[in-house]
Amino acid sequence: MYERLKGFRDFYPGEMRARREVMDSMESVARQYGFREIGTPALERTDLYTDKSGDEIVEQLYSFTDGGGRRVALTPELTPTVARLVVEKGTAMAKPVKWFSTRPFWRYEQVQQGRFREFYQLNIDIFGSTAPSSDAEILSVCADALTGLGLSASDFSFRVSHRDLLGGLLESIEPSVDDSAAIRAVDKRDKLSSDDYVALLRETGLSRDQIEEFNSVIDSNDLDVVRSFTDSSRVHAAVDNLEEVLVAAEDFGVREFCSISLDTARGLDYYTGVVFECFDSTGDVSRSVFGGGRYDTLIEEYGGQPTPAVGVAPGFSTLSLLLKRAGVWPAEELSTDYYILEAGETHEEAMTIARSLRASGNVVETDLRDRSFGAQLEYADTINAETVVIVGERDLADGVVTVKDMDSGEQVEVPVAEFPGSFDAPTYDDFVVAE
Amino acid sequence: MYERLKGFRDFYPGEMRARREVMDSMESVARQYGFREIGTPALERTDLYTDKSGDEIVEQLYSFTDGGGRRVALTPELTPTVARLVVEKGTAMAKPVKWFSTRPFWRYEQVQQGRFREFYQLNIDIFGSTAPSSDAEILSVCADALTGLGLSASDFSFRVSHRDLLGGLLESIEPSVDDSAAIRAVDKRDKLSSDDYVALLRETGLSRDQIEEFNSVIDSNDLDVVRSFTDSSRVHAAVDNLEEVLVAAEDFGVREFCSISLDTARGLDYYTGVVFECFDSTGDVSRSVFGGGRYDTLIEEYGGQPTPAVGVAPGFSTLSLLLKRAGVWPAEELSTDYYILEAGETHEEAMTIARSLRASGNVVETDLRDRSFGAQLEYADTINAETVVIVGERDLADGVVTVKDMDSGEQVEVPVAEFPGSFDAPTYDDFVVAE
Repeated sequence: MYERLKGFRDFYPGEMRARREVMDSMESVARQYGFREIGTPALERTDLYTDKSGDEIVEQLYSFTDGGGRRVALTPELTPTVARLVVEKGTAMAKPVKWFSTRPFWRYEQVQQGRFREFYQLNIDIFGSTAPSSDAEILSVCADALTGLGLSASDFSFRVSHRDLLGGLLESIEPSVDDSAAIRAVDKRDKLSSDDYVALLRETGLSRDQIEEFNSVIDSNDLDVVRSFTDSSRVHAAVDNLEEVLVAAEDFGVREFCSISLDTARGLDYYTGVVFECFDSTGDVSRSVFGGGRYDTLIEEYGGQPTPAVGVAPGFSTLSLLLKRAGVWPAEELSTDYYILEAGETHEEAMTIARSLRASGNVVETDLRDRSFGAQLEYADTINAETVVIVGERDLADGVVTVKDMDSGEQVEVPVAEFPGSFDAPTYDDFVVAE
Repeated sequence: MYERLKGFRDFYPGEMRARREVMDSMESVARQYGFREIGTPALERTDLYTDKSGDEIVEQLYSFTDGGGRRVALTPELTPTVARLVVEKGTAMAKPVKWFSTRPFWRYEQVQQGRFREFYQLNIDIFGSTAPSSDAEILSVCADALTGLGLSASDFSFRVSHRDLLGGLLESIEPSVDDSAAIRAVDKRDKLSSDDYVALLRETGLSRDQIEEFNSVIDSNDLDVVRSFTDSSRVHAAVDNLEEVLVAAEDFGVREFCSISLDTARGLDYYTGVVFECFDSTGDVSRSVFGGGRYDTLIEEYGGQPTPAVGVAPGFSTLSLLLKRAGVWPAEELSTDYYILEAGETHEEAMTIARSLRASGNVVETDLRDRSFGAQLEYADTINAETVVIVGERDLADGVVTVKDMDSGEQVEVPVAEFPGSFDAPTYDDFVVAE
């Protein structure tokens, strides 16, 4: 017997149906905002990652040499790829460019609950706008996607912060600080002991007192406290920008989902402005569900024209934990509109009925195993058929078929000419009323 | 500037929209037949292929060693993976098992028109039925998928043959023939010169006379000629089965798309029964568009219970050539229901309108760049907005917005309260009639 690779998953139909429902629902919200689907390769040249990405991602790359001697890697995230696409066609495209796609990514990392080596993300990005309304649109499309799945404001919140506010604050406290390293430390704060957090920050060039000072400002989660703490124009510009984004979020109707949380930092180095993470409000899902933010310098770093950008990438593994916790994960079961049951030599008539029901869009199964009446009914039950149409030899002689509601077990005889007749999706109820 | 790998493709929104429309349309037909979506990994252990697949596929594998020292490979086709899934859960699943999925595969091969190193296929399979109706259902779901895309019987045909008919025929002509090799030669016949074809068949143990005899039988494409040529029970059973499948195709209403074509053989070794290939009837697309067939022994070879199987795997690259030839490839352009144009300080009102139009499912874009009236109108044109709603400061003071039809350029003033009001998707026409 061959085994699946560790960290990879097979999705059988029940689970896949639930996942597909969630993916389709989120994608339809992205489409409503005018995000356009793109398709991107699973493999890229390895240097697309080794040149720019953080150490952690590079360590976890599935990288190898292809048949032509090129170093290639399975894409561990979408951002470098979309950067490549924007660089290639960016100048020719009307701005803003608004893209989405759902696809798998691969990282060779430790497998744990909700974390796999192959994982699926919906990436949503806006290129070519610095306006606070574009940051807010990203928050809004996420909020609408989550409420569209049945979540409410009591289920989740977006913890919003600003990279430049953190960077500027650190710089105003200690001009020689390694602010990238310090921000990475802030990002890990939740997962570290207080001592380890302080030790990490100490390595970035801050003294104990400075760390205490920094913590007291960010723990206030109060933008006025930040403003009065320093005259730094960098900090003031960042605070203004964060406030503008929150005002814009109000216009989108999603301010209620956002809370200021200044120790939200995001791990990746490329963020430059507003950053946010989605959390389970009950805390049952303890990790960030997903996150995003503004990255205004990345496209230029990849060789393109200066192009501001903001985006988010909900992953379906962690999201499914939140949806299950909230009791809104879709049912993991098959659904079938009709099973057409053949009793006796009625194949031709059964197929005619199946064809017309399919033509109006219904999910219809027929007998493919020459089975008995009972075995067919059992199969119909297995696939959760809502209605079974019994096409019996004797019934046909009388010009009728039997329509059986599988929920109640009730059934009714219907003239063959009336099934499906002018109905698109006839059920037991349509005929029992008419009797 | 970073470059995409050769043989890999980026799909920008226009092309992606056309591809998505084709994929969705074909998947919806598969769903109507009761095929259920599955999700499968991009990576498998390399031995899943090296143990069973043909030499060509193994040569073209993207195979490498992962961080844990395992030999792994990017999946070059789906069949070994679904075989693994059926082996794992097959005994627990109600039969028939009917699965589909759309996803990319990877082969390191020569890049040419319609052939890439990363390519997308819709795989559709039925497990657990030997009935001719299951072979016919595969033909039927393909035919419905193609007609659903706008093709007709004059555009394509399924060339249908039978592996065991070919094998039995060869065996009856020359008992010592290497029939697998001979069938591979038949599969390549179209691409070879007559001399090369004969030379290949000679290597399988046939004499020149025997080859001529074999050709004359298969070129008749007449099952009665085959029957009277030999008493072989293997051949007669295969001919009977092929006829039964064609009768079943009649019941599915798709017999008209099928023609008997006995030199259709399919390249892969695992086929055991009916095989078929879809061809462009005009011959403009010279290669097979896609193909499929019955493979009854594969699941057992992968370690499972004996499980008959039949399937097909349309690839979107070759299919797109056929759809373009027939003039039914979807338009490669964006579509947008509404652009909400802000003229003056009308952001809040514009966002309210955008939100309610999105809530009823429309694709709506708003200004994310604080642009001028003209620049916004130009952008609306770029994204093919059907309707532009002009939310102007002065208009609002009069309690109206302007609804502009972008096709005709006509516009009409509408009371703010009526837009969208009770309409789900109001357009210019809805208001100009009411005036």
